[in-house]
Amino acid sequence: MNISLPKAVEYKDKKMFILDQVKLPIEVSVVELNNHEEVWHAINKLMVRGAPAIGIAGAFGLLISLKNYLNLSPSEFKAKVVELSTYINSSRPTAVNLSWSLGRMSRKAATCFNDTTGEIFKILEEEAINIYNEEIESCKKIGEYGSILIKSNDCILTHCNAGALAVSEYGTALSPLYHAFDKGRQFKVYADETRPLLQGARLTAWELSQVGIDVTLICDNMAAYAMSKGLINMVIVGCDRVAANGDTANKIGTLSTAILAKHYNIPFYVACPYSTYDINTLTGDDIIIEERKSNEVTSFMGVKSAPDNINVLNPAFDVTPANLITAFITDKGIIKPPFDVNMQDVDNKVLFPEDL
Amino acid sequence: MNISLPKAVEYKDKKMFILDQVKLPIEVSVVELNNHEEVWHAINKLMVRGAPAIGIAGAFGLLISLKNYLNLSPSEFKAKVVELSTYINSSRPTAVNLSWSLGRMSRKAATCFNDTTGEIFKILEEEAINIYNEEIESCKKIGEYGSILIKSNDCILTHCNAGALAVSEYGTALSPLYHAFDKGRQFKVYADETRPLLQGARLTAWELSQVGIDVTLICDNMAAYAMSKGLINMVIVGCDRVAANGDTANKIGTLSTAILAKHYNIPFYVACPYSTYDINTLTGDDIIIEERKSNEVTSFMGVKSAPDNINVLNPAFDVTPANLITAFITDKGIIKPPFDVNMQDVDNKVLFPEDL
Repeated sequence: MNISLPKAVEYKDKKMFILDQVKLPIEVSVVELNNHEEVWHAINKLMVRGAPAIGIAGAFGLLISLKNYLNLSPSEFKAKVVELSTYINSSRPTAVNLSWSLGRMSRKAATCFNDTTGEIFKILEEEAINIYNEEIESCKKIGEYGSILIKSNDCILTHCNAGALAVSEYGTALSPLYHAFDKGRQFKVYADETRPLLQGARLTAWELSQVGIDVTLICDNMAAYAMSKGLINMVIVGCDRVAANGDTANKIGTLSTAILAKHYNIPFYVACPYSTYDINTLTGDDIIIEERKSNEVTSFMGVKSAPDNINVLNPAFDVTPANLITAFITDKGIIKPPFDVNMQDVDNKVLFPEDL
Repeated sequence: MNISLPKAVEYKDKKMFILDQVKLPIEVSVVELNNHEEVWHAINKLMVRGAPAIGIAGAFGLLISLKNYLNLSPSEFKAKVVELSTYINSSRPTAVNLSWSLGRMSRKAATCFNDTTGEIFKILEEEAINIYNEEIESCKKIGEYGSILIKSNDCILTHCNAGALAVSEYGTALSPLYHAFDKGRQFKVYADETRPLLQGARLTAWELSQVGIDVTLICDNMAAYAMSKGLINMVIVGCDRVAANGDTANKIGTLSTAILAKHYNIPFYVACPYSTYDINTLTGDDIIIEERKSNEVTSFMGVKSAPDNINVLNPAFDVTPANLITAFITDKGIIKPPFDVNMQDVDNKVLFPEDL
């Protein structure tokens, strides 16, 4: 692509850097992380967020944390890999990518039998770089497949941020937009602001406008109005986990946009790497929803907006049932219903754009 | 009722007081208004807001402004009534209740032919008190009819603020809740925070919790989650205008909750005085939607949440089509579909709760 996208996570010269997304768009601040506590804090406080970016940050975060234990014996070091993986994994419970990438790092370490501690570190470094490159490649494919769905003059609604900032380049939901834009197509994007943490306002609006894509910010409760006025003809969102039957967990508010899209007969697409599909989670009911602190809801950018001691509900995610999803845009192609069959038998059943 | 509700506007011993809603819920501040400039400022800056409350504030505001001109001759005083009415009305030109109540006061003054200035003031004082009492009586009836719909253990979602603070007591959408609570029923309320101005978080959550009603604050995009989890079994909202066919304009985001309620088979009620029904507006398409300033969406209380110069959509209202509305709770009873017939021929077709 010719356009240049912001990077959420970078690993350079054995150092790890993140773009602090809590400070965006007021301040563009790149922060170095030096140990497992800083990594845990950065993931937990959403300085780095977005399922794939968290997976990448977990792998590089484990690596830079391990750099502080290179004096341990190989067996002690391998135990430390497990210990630090468990610790870092506890920073965000719902995102499957974090446990997946940390699990992959741990399994890699477990295969090292006759290596020195330094050699194990090097093997893990290669593995983390592989994870990073695979995510980028996967997002690129999502973008290539998904861009075929996007024509000039389309008006696309997206929720939260599943863009370059949520991965490290391209993104998932926004990758088709970047690829279509790169091919010269002109379209309009509506970005839900995405309360309580305003990733849509702070991140999506910012990263789309950085490359010159026509983006309009709306409050979450305005999507129905926009649809009723014919301003939107497609919804694309990312996701955190897809159950075996196609039920999909994503940022709170996604379910609402899916129901509205169905009401107005607007196609609703979920863009994600195929690895987000979790065959061990049978349905959406089996997905545990992280409940976050009430002060996210009772304040807005740190300004108090509600009475003291008020009861609050603050689920970080909701589950969109498979029957509200038009298709998944994945790195293996575009997958249409029935998802319980087509997602599992993906190599035979995957439907590429030309089949749509 | 035994419960004591906050009063948006009060007139006592020829003095006028308002509860400053800009400062709520951080500070509970009752302010005396002494002249037409202070009244204009209070309405313009939303210290008093909500269509019926603005009407009441206009009438009492005119009255306390006139108190400063009791030394004028009767004809000079009547000219002053028109002059100050025009001035106060310019504080919020779109609120129909304000021009309605000020017009009523002016017409009353115009009927005074042989009265002294002091007598005209007394007649206008009675008229303002009548306006106040009629609004209260209308809200009380909405509450009495609506309360029959509310059982113990119900879980009711509401949007924006159509409570005591928007009228002066009882409110419209919240009046059924206050009346049911006063009868000893225990239920749960979910309040949408209602971006961009957060009337749900700042006002509804505050006034319900003041009297001890169990209220939980959610972001607007969490209503679908709450419904999907079976946490909500009824929606009650207020409204700004009802078209002849039953299409209803209310605060932005109302349409979204109506579509979600339909998806989950949850009854969706609109509470309003019958006077809100506007037979001259044929359908929702004929209702002009006020587009407000973009900085309401790109910030809150002056704190920025979005990039500079981003495009914004900021409609203040949306229109819920009649077919998504289960019934109107009015001061004339509960009115079920078909609304185009039953709302117009209300005296014959009104359906009281026992018919439901």
